[in-house]
Amino acid sequence: MARAQLTRSIEFPAGHRYYRSEWSEQENAVRFGKCANEPAHGHDYRIEVTVEAEVDEQTGMAIDLSALDELLAQEILRPMDHAFLNDLPEFAGERAIPTTENLARAIWDRLVPGLPAACSLRRVRVREGRDLWSDYRG
Amino acid sequence: MARAQLTRSIEFPAGHRYYRSEWSEQENAVRFGKCANEPAHGHDYRIEVTVEAEVDEQTGMAIDLSALDELLAQEILRPMDHAFLNDLPEFAGERAIPTTENLARAIWDRLVPGLPAACSLRRVRVREGRDLWSDYRG
Amino acid sequence: MARAQLTRSIEFPAGHRYYRSEWSEQENAVRFGKCANEPAHGHDYRIEVTVEAEVDEQTGMAIDLSALDELLAQEILRPMDHAFLNDLPEFAGERAIPTTENLARAIWDRLVPGLPAACSLRRVRVREGRDLWSDYRG
Amino acid sequence: MARAQLTRSIEFPAGHRYYRSEWSEQENAVRFGKCANEPAHGHDYRIEVTVEAEVDEQTGMAIDLSALDELLAQEILRPMDHAFLNDLPEFAGERAIPTTENLARAIWDRLVPGLPAACSLRRVRVREGRDLWSDYRG
Amino acid sequence: MARAQLTRSIEFPAGHRYYRSEWSEQENAVRFGKCANEPAHGHDYRIEVTVEAEVDEQTGMAIDLSALDELLAQEILRPMDHAFLNDLPEFAGERAIPTTENLARAIWDRLVPGLPAACSLRRVRVREGRDLWSDYRG
Amino acid sequence: MARAQLTRSIEFPAGHRYYRSEWSEQENAVRFGKCANEPAHGHDYRIEVTVEAEVDEQTGMAIDLSALDELLAQEILRPMDHAFLNDLPEFAGERAIPTTENLARAIWDRLVPGLPAACSLRRVRVREGRDLWSDYRG
Repeated sequence: MARAQLTRSIEFPAGHRYYRSEWSEQENAVRFGKCANEPAHGHDYRIEVTVEAEVDEQTGMAIDLSALDELLAQEILRPMDHAFLNDLPEFAGERAIPTTENLARAIWDRLVPGLPAACSLRRVRVREGRDLWSDYRG
Repeated sequence: MARAQLTRSIEFPAGHRYYRSEWSEQENAVRFGKCANEPAHGHDYRIEVTVEAEVDEQTGMAIDLSALDELLAQEILRPMDHAFLNDLPEFAGERAIPTTENLARAIWDRLVPGLPAACSLRRVRVREGRDLWSDYRG
Repeated sequence: MARAQLTRSIEFPAGHRYYRSEWSEQENAVRFGKCANEPAHGHDYRIEVTVEAEVDEQTGMAIDLSALDELLAQEILRPMDHAFLNDLPEFAGERAIPTTENLARAIWDRLVPGLPAACSLRRVRVREGRDLWSDYRG
Repeated sequence: MARAQLTRSIEFPAGHRYYRSEWSEQENAVRFGKCANEPAHGHDYRIEVTVEAEVDEQTGMAIDLSALDELLAQEILRPMDHAFLNDLPEFAGERAIPTTENLARAIWDRLVPGLPAACSLRRVRVREGRDLWSDYRG
Repeated sequence: MARAQLTRSIEFPAGHRYYRSEWSEQENAVRFGKCANEPAHGHDYRIEVTVEAEVDEQTGMAIDLSALDELLAQEILRPMDHAFLNDLPEFAGERAIPTTENLARAIWDRLVPGLPAACSLRRVRVREGRDLWSDYRG
Repeated sequence: MARAQLTRSIEFPAGHRYYRSEWSEQENAVRFGKCANEPAHGHDYRIEVTVEAEVDEQTGMAIDLSALDELLAQEILRPMDHAFLNDLPEFAGERAIPTTENLARAIWDRLVPGLPAACSLRRVRVREGRDLWSDYRG
């Protein structure tokens, strides 16, 4: 049987700020530069979710695309679209900085429980602008 | 002599929020939807600035590109990159909502005084994400 | 008051075929080339709809974007997404060939009645692949 | 010696339909949604073919690009450009559904025999629209 | 009858250098910066050619696309693909600098004689990299 | 701890020529085609540099992005922007042909010494135009 990977891309705008209140203003400025600006800036995030599975011989599909789209809508778009990412449970209370690296991991952790058993998550890519992206592979 | 238009594109992330404090929460939600979320969301703005002029016979150029780039750096990138757009003079104190339409106009008004006399500004396009953009022509 | 243009872009796949049954196979092949192949080929159409209006001073918007999106969903996506374009009323019975030029015009005619009175349609662009597009301006 | 991967991208429009005549109309609709619409819809397929080889010290190339382009023209563009994919030998008679997953595999199988012995095929990516793609690695 | 515009885009790499031998090295450096570097640099030029015509009622087309493609192949791709633009007749002997502005004009002048009488050239756009382009409208 | 990959993309134009003086004109033409044209053609090169590291728990970053940008500016943009690639030490005296494959390797070798010890280089991708790119992984 053949295995294939399928990638779905979605886009949404959101806000974030890089800041640690335990650090001085100067320390925040040195480490985070303009990303520490108040109250927030943001991006048009482009997310690419790659899953892998056996291709079903009857449907020719590695995964039911409408089910994947529903999962992405529930776990990513609903909570993150036009949101302030620092307020998500993964980042609230300065638990973690909502960088592209950490956002990729947060999305990974949100998607894994909802995927069909026969389907494995292989990569989450988070793009921020044209020239920067992070990949997380679990 | 030949006239030509030259367009320069730049990109920067910024934050904004659509909100009028004179309106109720409900009214803000109805008019602005998720764009009213606190404290802010943002975008990777792509700005396209189009100027028109006679093409100089010696240089083959409609405008000195390094001078245009310097103008864009001073008037757009310096104040707007990673900024909260609502804090710009054009929008502060809820003077105006920093929509793509109003941002295009603000950029127009910032650029006109700095352009060479022989060169006219023809269009400012502001892109927000992949699927939305506004054009302002003065 | 300031006037601005706002453009919304949407994408959908569809099928079409260029063929006139009044012509011989040879004539169809000469005029339409591979576009005459049975039963159909298709494209990932990218549609750009540009409207122009005064910018509302309170909202900073030229048009209510959610209303525009609803119009595009009803008049374009609902009937055209994954459809065989030759079956649309504008093209059925070989009334017209569903070229990019004619599709742009069909979309124009579908959108005009549903736009707010203060808002004028300025251009419909239909993109077919990366390297070809048609513009219709009414 | 250095190994490198080289990727060539090509684009063509084609038509396809997802349908199994052994299933009821209802079953086809449930499984395939709008992709079951008659007679066909289509896409502007973007194919990315990645090969790997030692870099030739004299030419600095991993593969003779003009030979690769000729192979892609013969094995992919000639049979698939403006074609109805369900009619290809790999899919005819409902042998398989021409999904992006299966198309990637079909292209893989077509290319392998024609590649130089020193050059290995590493990945075939098939893009359908902006937001969906499948990868096949043999 | 309906008028429409159709735009075709093509891409090719070429080389060029900005230099006037009547000027000192210093003057060339001040005016042209790194574009004066010997012997040449280059770009992946993207050309967009926009024509306008009545849409033919039988074919639904503003222009015979295969005829337009043949014209672009003969007048643009054949002489300019992988060429050193300074050697083209329009630029040879330092007659003019091959800037994007002048290249757009040269392409305009090459295309006009070969277009069908019913079809008018409306714009030639020359893109150089992602963030710069020139438009010439005759 | 979590590992992540971060990719930074930069763009610059440059010139190059494929030519071996030990070969006859005919041999050069057969092997290199139009890429042997005098004096040079060029491209808008897009470089994608992928690094991998543990994500710092305090900053949420796999690498200090401003340090990476400084490294790319010093080792890639300063020597290669608007340059004739054949003149770089890696290629001078026909030591090697500046193909995308060899350019990817040259960039790899330039970056490795300057990366932080905790950070490993994973891939250098060199794009030339829209439809061709090479990957080097060391």
